[in-house]
Amino acid sequence: MIPMNLMSEFGKGRADYAVTGNFSEIAYKEAKRYGSINVAANSGDKNHSYIPTQDQLKLDPEADYFFFCSNNTIYGTEWNYIPETGNVPLCCDMSSNILSKPVDVSKYGIIFAGAQKNMAPAGLTVVIIDKSLAGREMSCTPLMMNYKTMIDKDSMYNTPPCWDIYVLGLVLDWLEKQGGVAGMEGLKREKAALLYDYLDNSSLFKAHAEPEFRSDMNITFRTGDDEKDAAFCKQAAEKGMTNLKGHRKVGGMRASVYNAQPIEGVKKLVEFMKEFEVNHSV
Amino acid sequence: MIPMNLMSEFGKGRADYAVTGNFSEIAYKEAKRYGSINVAANSGDKNHSYIPTQDQLKLDPEADYFFFCSNNTIYGTEWNYIPETGNVPLCCDMSSNILSKPVDVSKYGIIFAGAQKNMAPAGLTVVIIDKSLAGREMSCTPLMMNYKTMIDKDSMYNTPPCWDIYVLGLVLDWLEKQGGVAGMEGLKREKAALLYDYLDNSSLFKAHAEPEFRSDMNITFRTGDDEKDAAFCKQAAEKGMTNLKGHRKVGGMRASVYNAQPIEGVKKLVEFMKEFEVNHSV
Repeated sequence: MIPMNLMSEFGKGRADYAVTGNFSEIAYKEAKRYGSINVAANSGDKNHSYIPTQDQLKLDPEADYFFFCSNNTIYGTEWNYIPETGNVPLCCDMSSNILSKPVDVSKYGIIFAGAQKNMAPAGLTVVIIDKSLAGREMSCTPLMMNYKTMIDKDSMYNTPPCWDIYVLGLVLDWLEKQGGVAGMEGLKREKAALLYDYLDNSSLFKAHAEPEFRSDMNITFRTGDDEKDAAFCKQAAEKGMTNLKGHRKVGGMRASVYNAQPIEGVKKLVEFMKEFEVNHSV
Repeated sequence: MIPMNLMSEFGKGRADYAVTGNFSEIAYKEAKRYGSINVAANSGDKNHSYIPTQDQLKLDPEADYFFFCSNNTIYGTEWNYIPETGNVPLCCDMSSNILSKPVDVSKYGIIFAGAQKNMAPAGLTVVIIDKSLAGREMSCTPLMMNYKTMIDKDSMYNTPPCWDIYVLGLVLDWLEKQGGVAGMEGLKREKAALLYDYLDNSSLFKAHAEPEFRSDMNITFRTGDDEKDAAFCKQAAEKGMTNLKGHRKVGGMRASVYNAQPIEGVKKLVEFMKEFEVNHSV
């Protein structure tokens, strides 16, 4: 939706994209159909194990917007800073780390996030938009995909997904009782530190992401031996810890510790990793 | 989505639209932005109280498709035939009467229906498409709005609204136990007949829609006196029968008797209408 809303003419607009993982790459490929896209950075040279730093970004000062994805679920990396782009509005896909920490929304033009990670069941997308960006759509932008329509109609131009919105309300109530996004930030750091501290001291497991760009939501790691990785996932599943197999693009394992994952689950996983290490070290 | 999928070039395609109510009018206005639209018929001359007959349709034999909405929720009318359009594919919005009767899907190019009337909670749209119609999209059609994407990816290009799909499965199981769509057709006719038979014999209430085009899903009626209409809705709500106020575009009352409405609810409403008539006749 972003190209169709921020580039005012089909094929004539310009935008910057930072490609740091699967979803930013899909977004980049789709955006190329709508205008001239500058790849501000691409971490594909190291299998997306890092996030480009500010001085690595090649920015177009005339871009209609700058796009990035704040957390990369498959590769387990997370932006640890907000890019400085001058007058170019920041557009950010926060699907996989929204509500995991305080965010200064005033720095962004558009934040969007699918609900299915930290908010509510799949079927709802939350958009936080600087209203001054609405009304720049292409002539071929459908009314249903025009942010201006949703602003003008209080997000009820169509029949909204009521149940998802209701559940989101319940989740937000729960989240406030846990200390809000600041509370979530403390908790996620505690959970991620348990895993990363162990990984950094393990002689069997290695973390995929470079230390300063590690995601607190998705912790990716491997033994370096596909057979051991497979055995680990199989035995973990037998103990009730499922879906640890990493995405085929990066291999190994991935532990997703979204807000809904209690710290006890992380402790149980680390205990099992230690046990597995003892049994499988050479 | 239909203009962006069936007219292969922005601004160059042609389509026929039958405007018989609110949603077909919205669809027509939006389609006009994408191509040359011929209004095959418009029942607005009689406040959408009827459906144009086959011989009233002014068809363009070169149209990319013919669009209509099979049931008009606000006006309470329903198509009682499938239009004959030669080689022009039929596209139908069945949101408000899908699963209420058997449908010969082979006669249609595209059937779509929002789930929120007869299928599942809001947030899901079901599409039945002749796959040979996919792949005709405009160059500006987003991947997410391209039926071909959804066909190629088994409707899972994006994370689907899992809970809605699960509930739809439960509803379909329930529906099969009720005799399937044939069972639903018998039930809806019984429910609608209770209301229409009473309306046709009432000296107080009058049905809005012309007899041969009456909807079995949405029964619209009025007393002809706004004050009496308001009193009726208020008293009905006190008895637990809510949302009977008609849409502001047609006024009066509207009883929606979707599949989920049991016949007991309809009987209770008719009883109250009789009681109200006795107390308010001149």
